Amino acid sequence: MATTVIVGGVAGGMSTAARLRRNDENREIIVFEASGYVSFANCGLPYHVGGVIPERSSLLLQTPESLGARFRIDVRTRHLVTEIDTVNNTVTVENLESGETFTQAYDELVLSPGARPFVPPIPGIERALTLRTVEDVDRIIAALDDSVKNVALIGGGFIGLELAENLIHRGLGVTVIERGPQILAPFDEEMAAIVAGHLEKNKVVIHTNADTTEIGEDSLTLADGTVIPADVVIAAIGVRPDTRLAEAAGLEIGPRGGIKVDEQQRTSVPNVFALGDAAEKTDINSGAAALIPLAQTANRHGRLVADIITGRDTKALPVLGTAIVGLFGLAASATGWNERNARRAGRNVRVIHIHPVNHAGYYPGATQLNLKLVIDADTDAILGAQAVGFEGADKRIDVIATAMRGGLTASDLADLELAYSPQYGSAKDPINLAGMVADNLAQGEKSVQWHELSDDMQLIDVRTVGEYERGHIPGAVNIPVDDLRENLDKIDASRPVVVSCQVGLRGHVATRILSGLGMDVANLDGGYLTYTHGQAARKFAHADQ
Amino acid sequence: MATTVIVGGVAGGMSTAARLRRNDENREIIVFEASGYVSFANCGLPYHVGGVIPERSSLLLQTPESLGARFRIDVRTRHLVTEIDTVNNTVTVENLESGETFTQAYDELVLSPGARPFVPPIPGIERALTLRTVEDVDRIIAALDDSVKNVALIGGGFIGLELAENLIHRGLGVTVIERGPQILAPFDEEMAAIVAGHLEKNKVVIHTNADTTEIGEDSLTLADGTVIPADVVIAAIGVRPDTRLAEAAGLEIGPRGGIKVDEQQRTSVPNVFALGDAAEKTDINSGAAALIPLAQTANRHGRLVADIITGRDTKALPVLGTAIVGLFGLAASATGWNERNARRAGRNVRVIHIHPVNHAGYYPGATQLNLKLVIDADTDAILGAQAVGFEGADKRIDVIATAMRGGLTASDLADLELAYSPQYGSAKDPINLAGMVADNLAQGEKSVQWHELSDDMQLIDVRTVGEYERGHIPGAVNIPVDDLRENLDKIDASRPVVVSCQVGLRGHVATRILSGLGMDVANLDGGYLTYTHGQAARKFAHADQ
Repeated sequence: MATTVIVGGVAGGMSTAARLRRNDENREIIVFEASGYVSFANCGLPYHVGGVIPERSSLLLQTPESLGARFRIDVRTRHLVTEIDTVNNTVTVENLESGETFTQAYDELVLSPGARPFVPPIPGIERALTLRTVEDVDRIIAALDDSVKNVALIGGGFIGLELAENLIHRGLGVTVIERGPQILAPFDEEMAAIVAGHLEKNKVVIHTNADTTEIGEDSLTLADGTVIPADVVIAAIGVRPDTRLAEAAGLEIGPRGGIKVDEQQRTSVPNVFALGDAAEKTDINSGAAALIPLAQTANRHGRLVADIITGRDTKALPVLGTAIVGLFGLAASATGWNERNARRAGRNVRVIHIHPVNHAGYYPGATQLNLKLVIDADTDAILGAQAVGFEGADKRIDVIATAMRGGLTASDLADLELAYSPQYGSAKDPINLAGMVADNLAQGEKSVQWHELSDDMQLIDVRTVGEYERGHIPGAVNIPVDDLRENLDKIDASRPVVVSCQVGLRGHVATRILSGLGMDVANLDGGYLTYTHGQAARKFAHADQ
Repeated sequence: MATTVIVGGVAGGMSTAARLRRNDENREIIVFEASGYVSFANCGLPYHVGGVIPERSSLLLQTPESLGARFRIDVRTRHLVTEIDTVNNTVTVENLESGETFTQAYDELVLSPGARPFVPPIPGIERALTLRTVEDVDRIIAALDDSVKNVALIGGGFIGLELAENLIHRGLGVTVIERGPQILAPFDEEMAAIVAGHLEKNKVVIHTNADTTEIGEDSLTLADGTVIPADVVIAAIGVRPDTRLAEAAGLEIGPRGGIKVDEQQRTSVPNVFALGDAAEKTDINSGAAALIPLAQTANRHGRLVADIITGRDTKALPVLGTAIVGLFGLAASATGWNERNARRAGRNVRVIHIHPVNHAGYYPGATQLNLKLVIDADTDAILGAQAVGFEGADKRIDVIATAMRGGLTASDLADLELAYSPQYGSAKDPINLAGMVADNLAQGEKSVQWHELSDDMQLIDVRTVGEYERGHIPGAVNIPVDDLRENLDKIDASRPVVVSCQVGLRGHVATRILSGLGMDVANLDGGYLTYTHGQAARKFAHADQ
């Protein structure tokens, strides 16, 4: 009887184990998990801290006993694999309860040890807690006793911000310290700024471009001397693939620092597989190695590895890195590349921002959605998208991720047939609108990004007088779109024109009117709203410099 | 200067007009609309009846004046086009206000007259109201005076049921009379039964297989003699393409009774275009003519026709017919073909039902989603899908509609990377789960549909004893999945086995265990839950026979 040993009993490892049993009733399947828990809800951990998920038991989706009964999997928690011998096909295992060490032989070895929280070398860092396991949650909750008033979170990523919300729910003062110029690195700055504004509205204090130099007893000091009150410090800076075992065994490590695997998730040793946060993935846009620590991919690759072990010839697809975070009711979701990534990769980038409502505006309860599309202008390929909004951001990113997987172009989004009744969408869904804008640009219409504006441009603000007076871009001349044809004398037709409105729609109409009259005209993409998001981003980024 | 005349000023016609202006600043654009309103929110009309959309003005998205100011479109409401002369390129128009008649020349004519409510030849039908225009809403609201206690709705389609909800909101007694065996014809019976059950819970009385034979002063009589109290009767039986003008002008009518058009929406006369509910579409699965009266398609084709008129060589794509209806908080959404359509078309049909929660079950507020996938078993192509649930049904159908447009197979759904955090989805999204089931079936696993069960099958119910005792399929033997390996002696391995659980997941595990032991085994697709939906459907359908 063949024996498969799996290192790690959470998403990837346990998906492998369960599928393996379903594929093969006659096989020994042993899972070693260093922590005390398997199949726990990683992504739910921050919500237990805040009491949103009140019962700790809700986080424990399976137990070694339940997995044994249903799948006859030999699950051993508190067992640390300390060494792999790829010549003799054995692992050395330490029982963390008894201290006893033993050797286990395998026919196939599957490495799914996950990632480790990155802990920066800051004086006092030993005071900082991290959040990765059920035991970590227990430690954080224990630390948040009645004496605690203020918590500092180092790191403005998904988990840090989810924790920030949950700590606010507990009535604590919360400061987020982010080393980079913005929170939420997967997003572009003007999209992240929407989220940052919402967090500040909900009493989260954010410092960007902020280096922590020292962690004291009840405070934390930044490089610029700012002292942040902090009875408890939590480091949520990001994770690094846990490659310790693999490296020690001489398995090849990839360019991004994860375990290198082929399309079948095989490491440099063919009967050793790796998956989940420890393994590198292949990026959908570039084909290059990528680190994308997401549960969905880990589960998917677990299933795949089990299929391959039991003889199916199949392979892993490149990954998009679709992700979402919900913060005080606001969702921020993204897939594929952001504009920064695309420009860094040297692509001819076309960017679209739109700000439609999530469902028909005439039906009560519509909220504004901020949707950004990043396109390869040479091919019209969708490189990525970002959506921020109270309702429907998840849906639009899921649709775009699906379109990317299906090889649809940005213009093709105009033709998607999405479910419309006034509670759920619009006759022209935000996705369709983005596709129509993409099509217009592919057909030669011109747009300008908020960060491309310059003082010497001839800028015409085509909103109403009231809108203009409530705030406008410096230097812009106001000619409402419905008066444009009668006020052409106010425009210097010999110079290029940039038109702007609130969200880009009237600007599009104005662009068509003026270009129809022979002028060289471009529309400010996303209008004044995207512009203000961009300004907010720059203000955030500079506030702490 | 070229002149384009457009007949009909709602979705399709007005999209054509506005796009035409944006494409061509120098063109005369005249829109004739027989009703008093253009660009009104058709899909919002039922919600104004119930006060969900309190302001009538919210339904009026544009006026002739606003369209004139922005797009210089000559919009004439209450103008009925009575005749087309395709030889001389003119239309005859009657001004319904003044009674005056005149002739208008065109270079291109665009027909977007929409559809007309079907009114069956029932004695007393002249008492029945219909709902298609703003004027219709006014009439319905006027009819619902204080004396009205009960309303009968003839027709259990989208608009009839939306009206039913809205009339309940007004405190009225509501009876829906459906001639067919089920409400919501785009859905399969067992999916429609979920909605029917929810409507009945909300006090809507439903009669299926019910022919109305007479409409009296304050009641309505069915063929079986049942008398339904009805102070007001509304007929919402469906719509027929309004082809009167086109037929009179000798334009070709297609096999489904709509105006026949080519891929460029041209009728049999090349400078006459047709679109919207009056025109036939092309079905995505069969390539055959189809009638799909949806706003999204009308808008999309309006844009396309404008592009073609102004010289772009482009064409319309086949349509899926994605639609959704929300009823008392429950959404029912569908795209492509249902199982009935697929079987009728002679396809080798593979069907999947799953019933996962809409987001991670460990996060508060998860609700059950009922998702059905219809697949061509020969090619693994997705032919269609249906989703019914309180949250996230719209999202899943949008994703599947996008996958269909992108040519992804059913098994490919397993690999979609959808946005997951516990408020918004699951690490294995319902879409992924459906894809995994599809992949299992494509790999040879067997399933049985609820309507394929027969008394001579060896049926093993693998749920817990408690679940089994609360209700089970007649003849099923209970062996909980976790005890299965120890109770093999209770199964006759020489005969085929059907296993069933609550939703199909444990049944899958049991299927794998037994087939791993060499038995011929199939899983009851969708489990006991789909079975009960099917039973409810049959009960509904027979109740009125």
